[in-house]
Amino acid sequence: MGGDHGPRVTLAACRKFLDDHPDAQLLLVGLPEPLAGFSHARASLVPASEVVLMDDPVEVALRRKKDSSMRVAIQQVRDGEAAVAVSAGNTGALMAIARYLLKTLDGIERPAIATQMPNARGGATTVLDLGANVDCTAEHLLQFAFMGAALGSVLKGDDQPTVGLLNIGEEVIKGNEVIKRAGELLRAARDSGDLNFAGNVEGNDIFKGTVDIVVCDGFVGNVALKASEGLASVIVGFLKEEFSRNVFTKMAAVCAYPVLSALKRRMDYRRYNGAALLGLRGLVFKSHGSADEVAFEQALVRAYDAARNNLLQRLQERIAHAAPLLARQAAVAPAASALAPSADIPAALHR
Amino acid sequence: MGGDHGPRVTLAACRKFLDDHPDAQLLLVGLPEPLAGFSHARASLVPASEVVLMDDPVEVALRRKKDSSMRVAIQQVRDGEAAVAVSAGNTGALMAIARYLLKTLDGIERPAIATQMPNARGGATTVLDLGANVDCTAEHLLQFAFMGAALGSVLKGDDQPTVGLLNIGEEVIKGNEVIKRAGELLRAARDSGDLNFAGNVEGNDIFKGTVDIVVCDGFVGNVALKASEGLASVIVGFLKEEFSRNVFTKMAAVCAYPVLSALKRRMDYRRYNGAALLGLRGLVFKSHGSADEVAFEQALVRAYDAARNNLLQRLQERIAHAAPLLARQAAVAPAASALAPSADIPAALHR
Repeated sequence: MGGDHGPRVTLAACRKFLDDHPDAQLLLVGLPEPLAGFSHARASLVPASEVVLMDDPVEVALRRKKDSSMRVAIQQVRDGEAAVAVSAGNTGALMAIARYLLKTLDGIERPAIATQMPNARGGATTVLDLGANVDCTAEHLLQFAFMGAALGSVLKGDDQPTVGLLNIGEEVIKGNEVIKRAGELLRAARDSGDLNFAGNVEGNDIFKGTVDIVVCDGFVGNVALKASEGLASVIVGFLKEEFSRNVFTKMAAVCAYPVLSALKRRMDYRRYNGAALLGLRGLVFKSHGSADEVAFEQALVRAYDAARNNLLQRLQERIAHAAPLLARQAAVAPAASALAPSADIPAALHR
Repeated sequence: MGGDHGPRVTLAACRKFLDDHPDAQLLLVGLPEPLAGFSHARASLVPASEVVLMDDPVEVALRRKKDSSMRVAIQQVRDGEAAVAVSAGNTGALMAIARYLLKTLDGIERPAIATQMPNARGGATTVLDLGANVDCTAEHLLQFAFMGAALGSVLKGDDQPTVGLLNIGEEVIKGNEVIKRAGELLRAARDSGDLNFAGNVEGNDIFKGTVDIVVCDGFVGNVALKASEGLASVIVGFLKEEFSRNVFTKMAAVCAYPVLSALKRRMDYRRYNGAALLGLRGLVFKSHGSADEVAFEQALVRAYDAARNNLLQRLQERIAHAAPLLARQAAVAPAASALAPSADIPAALHR
């Protein structure tokens, strides 16, 4: 039913996606009427009688709208009818419904949202969490690191992607108590050979591409992501304004067009659309609510690639491999239960 | 003694600053020998026998180097010999020494670091804290709001600058417990007419310029600042690379030069150099450790403007005005004392 723009955008993206991926099949979940016009040999309709609205509280989405398109889509994953679900809807509702229907993997207490940001090395840095958890313990951050490593290994085809802990300095004494303790856990995981932990990283390392995976709590990750998006759009706006100032700058824009369009492409957040909800017993991807056709197709492609590359299985294997370590840490965690329980109020990410 | 580059850069910046500001006087604090070559009618040397190094632990800077240039410079402020101190040195050491020698203002428990970031409105957004406090209570955030408002009124000449609380969504139910409680306190301050609080803002609002002042804890602020700096430098690097790719792109760069240099100027972090340490009984400004001549002069200009515009007095007045509110909140604060005491381990900001 598709985020801010509805089926008009999602259906067009679906058609493009099917054309580009001859092996893919789609289940279109939603109100029958708006989806009725779509016909394709590899697409079928799964009806739902309700839609979760962007401003529905999580409780409403979870408890009252039991036949929402979002819920029915995730049921397809739970029941093995679909390999992965993609939604451009309300993030908080999506996370809550996914968590309720799919449950978390053994060893994972909190699912996390992971996305990729372009870096100076021409690749992308995977960052998690981006808003599912506004208060994390050190143990949660350790779990995120393992989930991020699994995603990174699928994305990069590298079995031991490097993991950094987002902090305000590289030295181990930096940060608050949670971060310092997370650093200890991550170093222990490195020393036992379970994780390629590269130490603390800072905000600029996300874009430098210092490590493959950056781990942080959802509050910090969300702010960093949105601040970067804000800066990028200010820069694009500035260039547009300056290049259209007069006839000379307009001519300059024509000359500089190849470079400017390369920059625009590089900074185009649509190309990085599609965040993974990690830590669940099923694959769910979240598209930006404001996604246009290009962006929504990108989310479909990411979800498809993740499913085809057995992300879920790799996650399970990696978490299972790390299970003794995770269990040991959970058992000795001194303050985990003292933190405010706030995981159930997910963030506004990707609204 | 000057950050990464030493007196070579700071002395050149001082000379330029004195030439541009015929009313200004400088006390140059440091080892006599490297400063001996500098001679100016409005500059005099204040000798110090030690220098705090960039990697000195706070304890070493505070307890062992009692005749450091940093400490002697702040003593000049404490003793009324100087209106403001500027340093490009170790941020943690500077904050600790400033706090020890100057003490905090009544009503302020923790000093904060505030700086400005360019926004889409052609102005700048003031953001605090940027790394002095890695764990904040709601009451600290309220105090930061008042300090930021005082700084904003000096910078903008507007008596009631707008203040936003950095969060992961605009709705009041968003965020962790500390942020939600801070929102309550800030709304109370708005309702009593003490603060022009505009509600929650998100990371992108820093660059949109939605509000004049953005309040956050030091961990989040530091990450957001550094992520933005990282993205900006990736974009500049990308443009350089693309425009020097071949003879055609080089010609395009010539055509586009006016626009590109305007962008470069707009994104030049040197122009925003000079962060204020707020909440102390004296003015201290921090320059980026890697500041070059242009950037260090900018820090001097900011410090000079703050002193000339009576920032300290305005801060004191505003805090005094808000004292009943701040005291009431501190008295009823439920969890303030339960938080980990980490203010004494300042951050790597502007190292």
